[in-house]
Parts: sequence; structure tokens; C-alpha cells
Amino acid sequence: MRNVILILFTAGLILLTQLIDLKGTENNKESRYVIVVHGGAGAMSKNIPDSLREVYYKSLSEALNIGKNILEKDGSALDAVEKIINYLEDNPDFNAGKGAVFTSEDTHELDASIMSGIDLSCGAVAGVKHIKNPISLARLVMEKSPHVLFAGEGAEQFGKKMNVEFVENDYFHTPEQLQKWNERKSENKKVTVGCVVLDKKGNLAAGTSTGGMSGKMPGRVGDSPLINAGTYANNKTCAVSATGWGELFIRNTVAFNISALMEYKNMSLKEASKLMIMDRLPEKSGGIIAVDKDGNYAAEFNTNSMLRGIADSDGNFEIKIWE
Amino acid sequence: MRNVILILFTAGLILLTQLIDLKGTENNKESRYVIVVHGGAGAMSKNIPDSLREVYYKSLSEALNIGKNILEKDGSALDAVEKIINYLEDNPDFNAGKGAVFTSEDTHELDASIMSGIDLSCGAVAGVKHIKNPISLARLVMEKSPHVLFAGEGAEQFGKKMNVEFVENDYFHTPEQLQKWNERKSENKKVTVGCVVLDKKGNLAAGTSTGGMSGKMPGRVGDSPLINAGTYANNKTCAVSATGWGELFIRNTVAFNISALMEYKNMSLKEASKLMIMDRLPEKSGGIIAVDKDGNYAAEFNTNSMLRGIADSDGNFEIKIWE
Repeated sequence: MRNVILILFTAGLILLTQLIDLKGTENNKESRYVIVVHGGAGAMSKNIPDSLREVYYKSLSEALNIGKNILEKDGSALDAVEKIINYLEDNPDFNAGKGAVFTSEDTHELDASIMSGIDLSCGAVAGVKHIKNPISLARLVMEKSPHVLFAGEGAEQFGKKMNVEFVENDYFHTPEQLQKWNERKSENKKVTVGCVVLDKKGNLAAGTSTGGMSGKMPGRVGDSPLINAGTYANNKTCAVSATGWGELFIRNTVAFNISALMEYKNMSLKEASKLMIMDRLPEKSGGIIAVDKDGNYAAEFNTNSMLRGIADSDGNFEIKIWE
Repeated sequence: MRNVILILFTAGLILLTQLIDLKGTENNKESRYVIVVHGGAGAMSKNIPDSLREVYYKSLSEALNIGKNILEKDGSALDAVEKIINYLEDNPDFNAGKGAVFTSEDTHELDASIMSGIDLSCGAVAGVKHIKNPISLARLVMEKSPHVLFAGEGAEQFGKKMNVEFVENDYFHTPEQLQKWNERKSENKKVTVGCVVLDKKGNLAAGTSTGGMSGKMPGRVGDSPLINAGTYANNKTCAVSATGWGELFIRNTVAFNISALMEYKNMSLKEASKLMIMDRLPEKSGGIIAVDKDGNYAAEFNTNSMLRGIADSDGNFEIKIWE
């Protein structure tokens, strides 16, 4: 009889512990998710043809939907960031992956970085020439190497070990970029793609991928592959992805600075983002997208345009180019 | 007569303005200078032979004297940083320039960065294999290119244009490094050199140069060439140069973070440096040297040793390895 009571008592205890655990998990679990994506800040005229506007709306909508599908199934912020950026890298309409612009030597050099807000783990690649999806290689640097950043051939050697998809450098010679390059059009020359996500577990992640500055000198590294300058994520504060004149974003530590202003000065995400983009940076230098740990989001830019979209679990779904 | 009075009055006004100007300049001018230099944080045993201890004392003394000569003649913080680091790069006893360690492929890849606190201008090179003095190439990136960071071959192409001194990669095969490498000694594997200076005009500068992590995978970029992680200078706050496990310094934005804690949290240089190195970073990960705009300096490390020296215009002159 005493054994039965002991067993019942123990079973009750276990059940109670599990109920408390479940409740704890339930409480910690934010059920909201937020996705913000950008396709670069620039000087896009409001007079672009409707057909081009449609192209951007369609692509950014598709990017957001890829993220929604992942996050609604309780997928991670990191997976959403990677898969959204993979889509934009494979889309020739953006200066990242397939649509990468030309260097001054008529080649292509791609950069990308990704960061998880859970533990500040991060990975990046700079100056890769044959990697189809640089953001995925950046994630492998983060998860499968003890390092943060690989540049040039060393990055590609690591890619070989990781079995990522290689392409010839002329895979990035899209007819549109080639035509623009031949005409030396400067429009959109600094665009980049990026994404920040808060997932249902309350984890933040950020990623940025780019073909770099059109006509850049070979070997030039901008802010996109640099954690703290172009990309930052920290569950204590926010996730940020930047786009614009990379050198200014490095000198002003833009992505990390927004997090620092929140953490050290108790600024809101909106205030911190505005201060960095509107006050600290010169006009026409670029912009950022960001989401904080509570699901507030920001998209600030001091250029004429920034292609961007936002979607969340409350049903908000919006694409914008100007304003 | 009225004209004479007018002329005298105007002359008086001009004289007065100039006197006020001079006074203003005099007031703004700090007559103090401070130099802090490091030769890397590591696990150096206190039982090293006296002869080796002498080598380090002599080299760091010489480095400080090079800086003193420049600063006493009203030279700039930037010149002092570059020339001090040039000396350490040419000295085979440090893991930078001539004494660079081996990569996993038995080659050498060098990184360096430099920053001016006056206007946050900065320059860096990563993964160069044939540049005798990477810190000088970093300064040329800062002053003669619109960019901040060049990696790999592109950095060397830029070096060719700038006519810097090239060497064969085996210039860096010093007998001592070769012996260490052949014996696969891990001691000192992460050391770096760096320097921070406050000059008499009150300007700050910081620089860092390294041969990277011994046995690193080719293409791996640590914190040394990364502004904000390994090097930072801002006349509003401080100048910092870091040494240690680069990936942790990138993830924790160490150099910029010390400046941010001072600017946003009103911490002293000492408090900010201690917080970063002792609380935010894991044990045995490295250290920093720093000097603030008022001439306070700090040398914090969570490793067993950090080779370092400090000299200032008040006559302080000190070299330390442990404590």
C-alpha cells in the first residue's frame, strides 16, 4: 500500500513538473513572428514603368511568403532569413547572387553575412566568385567552422569542403546587368538584399547578401559581409540588415550601433534607427531594416527609395519602394 | 580724421579676434601625449628565459621610443601608430609582418587595420601574402582610396598601384616560426601587435597588424583587419587595439563597444575595458590596449600574459608581460 501511494505521489509530482514546464514554455513562447526584407536603398525614380514596379512587388511578396511558410510551421528565424535571401539571390532582379553587378574588371565578387541573435554566432564570406548562394555559405561558416569570416579563394576552398553549389563566374552575367554595365548606368549601383526575422520562439536573425558596388575595385569589401557594420542580431535588442554606401556603414558601425543605442541608452528601435540613418549618416548614403525582440520593426533610409516588404503573424503584409 | 579712427578701430578688432583665436587654439591644444603598444595576449609562462624576456623588453622599448620621437616633435597620432607598427612588423619576434605565423597550408597571410579618431576615417587589408608592411598599406587604403577594406589579391593589386614594398611569401618564413611550426607548438599562436596613441593636439589613432592565427584555414579573416572589432578610434571617446581569439572579438564588437560604453553609458575607459574583457568575453580569449581623449590608458587581458608598453609625455615609461 505504501508503495502504491509512493508511486502515485511520484507520478503526481512528475505530472505537475511537466505542467509547470509546459506553462513555462507557453509563457516564454512569443506566438508572433515578423519578417522584414529589403532589396536595396537607392535613387529609383518614381517614374519607373508599372511593369518594373510589378516585378519588384511580385518578387518581394514571394520572398515574404517563403518566410511566412517557414515561420508559421514554427521554423526558425535563421532558416527564414537564409531561404528568403536564397530566393532573392536566385532572382536576377536584385544585386545579389545571380543578379550581381560587375566589378571594374568585368567580373563578379559576392559578399554575404548572417547572424543569430540567440548566442551572437555569425558567419560571413567576402569576395566569392563561384558560389551560387553566398548566404548559405556564410551560414556554413557560422555552423561548421570555428571562424566568422572567410575571404576570396579561402572562402571557396571552404565551400568545396562543404559541397555547396558552384557556378562559373559568367553565371552572374545576366543580360540586364550586362546591358546596364555596357551603358555604365549608375542607377541602383549600390543595392543589396537583406532580411531580418523574429520567429515565434522570440529568436532574432539577420542576413545580408550583395554583388557589391557596381564597378568596384577587385578585393574591395563593403559592409555587407561585416558583422556589426552591415548585419547584426542580438536577442537582447534587435536584428538589423543595412544597405548603402558600405564604407560609411563600417565607419559608423551602423548595425551594431542601433543595438547599442537600445541597450545602453534605452532608445526604442525606431529612435535608434532614425538617429543612425538621419543624423549620423550623410544624406543619400543608404538605409536599414530592423526588428526588435518585441516585434517592433523599422525601415529607415536617407535615399530616394528603398525596396522593402514586411509581413507578420497579425496579417500585416506590405511592400513599399518610396516614402 | 574719421577714416583714421575707422582704420584704427578695424585694426583693433582684427587684433582682438586673432588674440581670441590664439587663445582658443591654446586651450584646445593638449600638450600631453600617450602611447600604448602591445605585442599580443597569450599564455606565456613566467619561466621564459631571461634572454627572451630581454628581447621583448628591448623591442617594446624601441617601439615606444620611435613613438616618443615622433610625438615630441608634434607629430601626429597616426604617424606614431604607423611607424611603431612598422617597427614591430619588421621585427621577427612578433606575429606581424616578418614574424607572421604559418597558415594550415604552410603559407603566410597578413591582416592590418588603422583608424583616425579625427573623422573616423579608416583603412584595412586582409589576407595579403606579399606586402612587407601591411599597416602602411592599410593607411593607403584609408587615405588614397574611397574604400575601407581590401582583401586578398585585390589588396595586393591596390598595393602595386601605391608602389608599396613587395616581398616573396617566404620572406615571412623566419627560422623561429618555421621551427615552431614544424614542432606544431601552439604557444603564442594568436598573438598580434597593436598600438594606440593620443598626440599633443588631442587626436587619437589606433592600429593593429597580425600574421593571423597559427595554422588557420586560408582565407580566414580575424578581428585584426576589422574596424570596430579589432581596431577603433574616435576623438570623442578613445582608441582601442585588440589581440586574442578574433572570432569572439568580432561577435562582441570589442573595440567599438568600449567606445560605445563610454559614450552612451558614461563609463570610464577603465570600467568599459574591464567590462568587455573580464565580463563579456570568456576567460583566456585575449585583451586590449586603449587610451582615451583625456590621456587615461588601459591594458586589460584575461589571458596569462600580454606583452605591452606605455610611454607618455610625463616621463612614464613601462614594459610589462604578466600581472
